[in-house]
Amino acid sequence: MTESNVRKPGKNGGPAMSAPACPAPILSHTAIQMAHGGGGRISRELVEKLFVPAFANPMLDELHDGAFLPMGGERLAFTTDSHVVTPLFFPGGDIGKLAVCGTVNDLAMCGARPLWLSAGFILEEGLPVETLERVVESMRIAAANAGVKLVTGDTKVVDRGKGDGLYINTSGIGRIEHDALVPSRVREGDAVLLSGDIARHGIAIMVLREGLEFEGEIESDCASLAAPVMALLEAGIDIHCLRDLTRGGLATALVEIAASAGVDICIEERITPVNETVRGACEILGLDPLYVANEGRFVAFLPGAQVERAMEILGRFEETAGACIIGRVERKEESGRGTVSLKSAIGVKRIIELLSGEQLPRIC
Amino acid sequence: MTESNVRKPGKNGGPAMSAPACPAPILSHTAIQMAHGGGGRISRELVEKLFVPAFANPMLDELHDGAFLPMGGERLAFTTDSHVVTPLFFPGGDIGKLAVCGTVNDLAMCGARPLWLSAGFILEEGLPVETLERVVESMRIAAANAGVKLVTGDTKVVDRGKGDGLYINTSGIGRIEHDALVPSRVREGDAVLLSGDIARHGIAIMVLREGLEFEGEIESDCASLAAPVMALLEAGIDIHCLRDLTRGGLATALVEIAASAGVDICIEERITPVNETVRGACEILGLDPLYVANEGRFVAFLPGAQVERAMEILGRFEETAGACIIGRVERKEESGRGTVSLKSAIGVKRIIELLSGEQLPRIC
Repeated sequence: MTESNVRKPGKNGGPAMSAPACPAPILSHTAIQMAHGGGGRISRELVEKLFVPAFANPMLDELHDGAFLPMGGERLAFTTDSHVVTPLFFPGGDIGKLAVCGTVNDLAMCGARPLWLSAGFILEEGLPVETLERVVESMRIAAANAGVKLVTGDTKVVDRGKGDGLYINTSGIGRIEHDALVPSRVREGDAVLLSGDIARHGIAIMVLREGLEFEGEIESDCASLAAPVMALLEAGIDIHCLRDLTRGGLATALVEIAASAGVDICIEERITPVNETVRGACEILGLDPLYVANEGRFVAFLPGAQVERAMEILGRFEETAGACIIGRVERKEESGRGTVSLKSAIGVKRIIELLSGEQLPRIC
Repeated sequence: MTESNVRKPGKNGGPAMSAPACPAPILSHTAIQMAHGGGGRISRELVEKLFVPAFANPMLDELHDGAFLPMGGERLAFTTDSHVVTPLFFPGGDIGKLAVCGTVNDLAMCGARPLWLSAGFILEEGLPVETLERVVESMRIAAANAGVKLVTGDTKVVDRGKGDGLYINTSGIGRIEHDALVPSRVREGDAVLLSGDIARHGIAIMVLREGLEFEGEIESDCASLAAPVMALLEAGIDIHCLRDLTRGGLATALVEIAASAGVDICIEERITPVNETVRGACEILGLDPLYVANEGRFVAFLPGAQVERAMEILGRFEETAGACIIGRVERKEESGRGTVSLKSAIGVKRIIELLSGEQLPRIC
């Protein structure tokens, strides 16, 4: 209720508007690039150099798909994802299904049973209400299928030309019922299990954007992975580490895990499944399927002795019916550096690296 | 891994792309209007006719600031808000402070102690990294001041011209330590306590947008309300209902509470504090301060006998130092309809209604 009486906001806008003393630049770029959202090295720099130092706390520092939180004798997983996919609708899904499945999957990857979701909509002025209705209906179905409840929400509208139809943030809470499924538990000799063929989601989006036509429609793999993951855990499968393959694809997930765990991972190209139409589209588009985003695939590290039982369980679910073993953990690196190598069909090994930028913008 | 071999996605895009059978229109508009995000009647229609039917469950149906969830013998509050304020920086705050305080306040309004936040950033390509750094620093300070930890996050980037600098979603989890502070507990004779002068936030933004100049800078009231609210509850003040005054302002909050509770509320214009500079700006802009957004004010309903003690507690906190009683609950309506009336300085009563649209777009 006190009033200052000198400052004129129209002229300098007060202290909150003035530029701070210029600190040393901490990032490699001075302006945000599309690649800052791509899940590769530049994204990682943003997280590690800007967000983590600002918000440092033991829960955040895990850099996992979600945070682990103690509550009333139980442990929660808490996760958030904004979705900006374009176009809004694509074969096999839409932004609504993606928003629900993406957050459900992040919880499942924490070994948490997904329970509750929030939905925050940012709508662009002029969006047809019918589009929103279709997206909401898709979210309803996806939430029902995944067994989660959408319990709180928010809607904002931005001016025409300041959005792109709609963006959706979903945050989620799950109950952790099992040991942490984290890189530090990965062991030499672990089998690398992939839950199905890769690169469908990214390619389904790119084919649509580019107006390409193929014999054989490419459908996104967008799906909730909670049911098969919970089934594995309930059956006592000792999953050491679990990661869904989103931005940056299989390669990025493996490189991050190898680095965190300090292990060398070798996978074989010949047995890493890629649908033939997807492979053809990748060739035309100049993309490596290893780096293309998925929205319904995971990689799991588990003891070799449990592989057979795990495969039997995953075979019961449509979304993991194509699961297979694609490689193994060759050794624990004493130095803490870890590498991923890909053995080609003719037996040549090459090292897989993080992409510095991203291949496909706005695929989730 | 199965393939269809007829459909050409370039031509019809498959089932997910085709329009559904046209249902009867359920909303008054066929395209999204700015007012759908304004917190008035049109926003409410969107929530009640589209979101609530789709996601119906006992937790969502409360339409409170957050959901109430059981977990391990405790109860959680869970809330979400996307922030799209423009400009990003304003006297008294910025989008980062707003994003933290907004979600902290939603939790506090549920009678929950705010514990953990998520942050989802949607960045526009080309945003200066320095701007993001300033916003993140502001979030860090706001989170530390409010005693919450930011534990998980996500970053997406959209193409130049598809965003407006940056949007931030914050979702939050709190522990409910007290009885529900909901309209159904409002009683005849309850005092209506307002935590400070109204309309600062919306007017601070509008003055900046319009380039107006006043003697006396108008600073947003943007602040965390968790500390004073927790202090009231810990002191045993029996708050019946608590609501923060965001989009739609004091009038909207009171009308919604009156309708939910089925009570008649009367407030007095003469004793409802509005800063003189803010009042002058409202006159120039043609705005009614009762409907202008606040970001650091609440209204509480409590027994008259506890007013003195509550005021003494609120006086200890800078953000609630201007708290005062502005009216009372006159009667419980048997019919279930409730009204809000404003007694003017000359004693004339007028009924306060919900605005159909919104006065101020993108103020949070």
